[in-house]
Amino acid sequence: MRQLTVDLGERSYPIFIGEGILERIGEFFEERSIHKNSPMLIITDKHVAVHHLDQVTLHLEQAGYKVHVKIVPPGERSKSLAVLEDVIGAALKGGLDRRSTIIALGGGVVGDLAGFVAASYMRGIRYVQIATTIQAHDSSVGGKVGVNHPFAKNIIGAFHQPELVLFDIATLRTLPLRDIRSGLSEVLKEGLIWDADFVAWFDRNTEALLALDSDALQHALYEGIRIKAHIVSLDERENDLRAILNLGHTIGHALEAVAGYNQLLHGEAISIGMVGAAKLAVRMGCPAEVYTETKRLLSKLALPVKLPENLDVDEIMSAMMHDKKFKEGLMVFILPTAIGTVEIRKGVQSDLVREVVTELKRED
Amino acid sequence: MRQLTVDLGERSYPIFIGEGILERIGEFFEERSIHKNSPMLIITDKHVAVHHLDQVTLHLEQAGYKVHVKIVPPGERSKSLAVLEDVIGAALKGGLDRRSTIIALGGGVVGDLAGFVAASYMRGIRYVQIATTIQAHDSSVGGKVGVNHPFAKNIIGAFHQPELVLFDIATLRTLPLRDIRSGLSEVLKEGLIWDADFVAWFDRNTEALLALDSDALQHALYEGIRIKAHIVSLDERENDLRAILNLGHTIGHALEAVAGYNQLLHGEAISIGMVGAAKLAVRMGCPAEVYTETKRLLSKLALPVKLPENLDVDEIMSAMMHDKKFKEGLMVFILPTAIGTVEIRKGVQSDLVREVVTELKRED
Repeated sequence: MRQLTVDLGERSYPIFIGEGILERIGEFFEERSIHKNSPMLIITDKHVAVHHLDQVTLHLEQAGYKVHVKIVPPGERSKSLAVLEDVIGAALKGGLDRRSTIIALGGGVVGDLAGFVAASYMRGIRYVQIATTIQAHDSSVGGKVGVNHPFAKNIIGAFHQPELVLFDIATLRTLPLRDIRSGLSEVLKEGLIWDADFVAWFDRNTEALLALDSDALQHALYEGIRIKAHIVSLDERENDLRAILNLGHTIGHALEAVAGYNQLLHGEAISIGMVGAAKLAVRMGCPAEVYTETKRLLSKLALPVKLPENLDVDEIMSAMMHDKKFKEGLMVFILPTAIGTVEIRKGVQSDLVREVVTELKRED
Repeated sequence: MRQLTVDLGERSYPIFIGEGILERIGEFFEERSIHKNSPMLIITDKHVAVHHLDQVTLHLEQAGYKVHVKIVPPGERSKSLAVLEDVIGAALKGGLDRRSTIIALGGGVVGDLAGFVAASYMRGIRYVQIATTIQAHDSSVGGKVGVNHPFAKNIIGAFHQPELVLFDIATLRTLPLRDIRSGLSEVLKEGLIWDADFVAWFDRNTEALLALDSDALQHALYEGIRIKAHIVSLDERENDLRAILNLGHTIGHALEAVAGYNQLLHGEAISIGMVGAAKLAVRMGCPAEVYTETKRLLSKLALPVKLPENLDVDEIMSAMMHDKKFKEGLMVFILPTAIGTVEIRKGVQSDLVREVVTELKRED
């Protein structure tokens, strides 16, 4: 088992990564002083519930916790204010009070939703994330929680740190391979922005990761989380540095919006976005290797590196202009300047971005 | 003009109370470094808009601010997630970014809604409250913002402090007398929990306050805000002491819930609630004067001190049991032990509370 701490002063919290954690969940909760007298609410989706809900509920009840459950529909559409209202209704019916804990059992969507429930219920109660996807390594660090607005993704939310995050590698074995690949896209991203050694390790271990080798997965999650946690601890409220975590997200979010959040998984959209950012970097003077290596590493994971034919460049550009990362109308990009290093480039010309996005349709 | 500062470390902010403040609004914004390059959004309701919106917009635009406006329906029903979504849509359409400011132009409902918009839009942007009611003296201090759930009031929200709060006494002259009285109910409450001298001043100046005398109103607002700000600064996150601000609210919130948020104004419900809390205090051994004086002072303001005939005691008791102030099923009450002093009493018997609520129907 591996453990690390997200260092945020009095809001610091531990993350555990290992095998068989769910069977010992009561110990982890007790160790963290999660309160037993107030009822708790597990928020999960029906896919995750099938595999893991009974086990989690059983072990928590055996440890003496009072557990209520709310199952939401799977997928991005549950990150809405309507579902938030429904879940808060379940919290009220369950009698949750200010000392209660919300438990997010699932991936990024459930984590973002449940975290915002915890942030806003009675103006903030505690929450624990039981992460069941690789993708969740990203949302489990940094305290960004929230839901979507019909006009824009992740626009309604809060910074709210969990009390505890648990990754049981066993849960990853129930994921479709496509989700594994998509999750690894964002783990690789942490290396691409900060740590060339980890990228080299990732390159050597791609096959082991895709084969769900336990040691490889634990190491990849540990490193991805370590890098993200380090950056977040330097800039919790995203004043400047933290923005580098958005490598690939400017184009990626626009692709998700235009594709309707369904055609592309998040990590797939980010994969295409990272190739786009690398192309842009090369056009602005960075070494060509930045682009060829980024593309090679993502292709090795069998992730998409090319813009789907059906997506319209005008719509993508328009979606990007609504992205909340643009201050005062200027386009800002996170550009890879070498493998393992990025910079925040302001005032990028939108014409150049359009050229790059157009070229993304013609990738091999 | 009177000025005070709510002292919350790096989240401290100033409150100005005076005549003619709206004509000089640009100066106050500039003094507080409210950003001019990012668009702002004024959130108000249609009643307030009729009287003050043109003036506020004009003076802000003259000072060089880019102003968008969103008018919501008046009344408690605008404190909903549906209206929140609608307002956030307006913020997105207006192009508000992370450096933008939300302006709450109105009373407590607009302040709570707009404050939660500011707390959750892009995970938190700045907001300014231009308070147009006496009641808003309460919501303008302490950073409690939020909306209602169909099952419970104020259950979805955040702690989010404003940048600046402005009270222009001129705006109070457009209020119905009933709103003036309701607002003064909560100003008097600040005295009842903390400051017998202010209660004595209030008693001597009740007629001047109801006649909207400028000096009397400025002094009452100043003192009410000063007391509340002092208590909030001692306990920003409501861990213990801050709960005393809820004198009259346990019964009062239940009355509002049962009456459907329409029959009783907030200050009216709190007035009945304070009489109830005083009765309860006397039943538990406090001097009879606590009850007779509380009732006399509220009656002098022509506020209701008796439970409306149509409200059902069982429903009121049931609504109280859902109140978020009850930890682990125990009933907690703020009890006045003398004029100007209260205590937090835990483990109050619900049978005794029921007797007191029943007696509240029989007040003279």
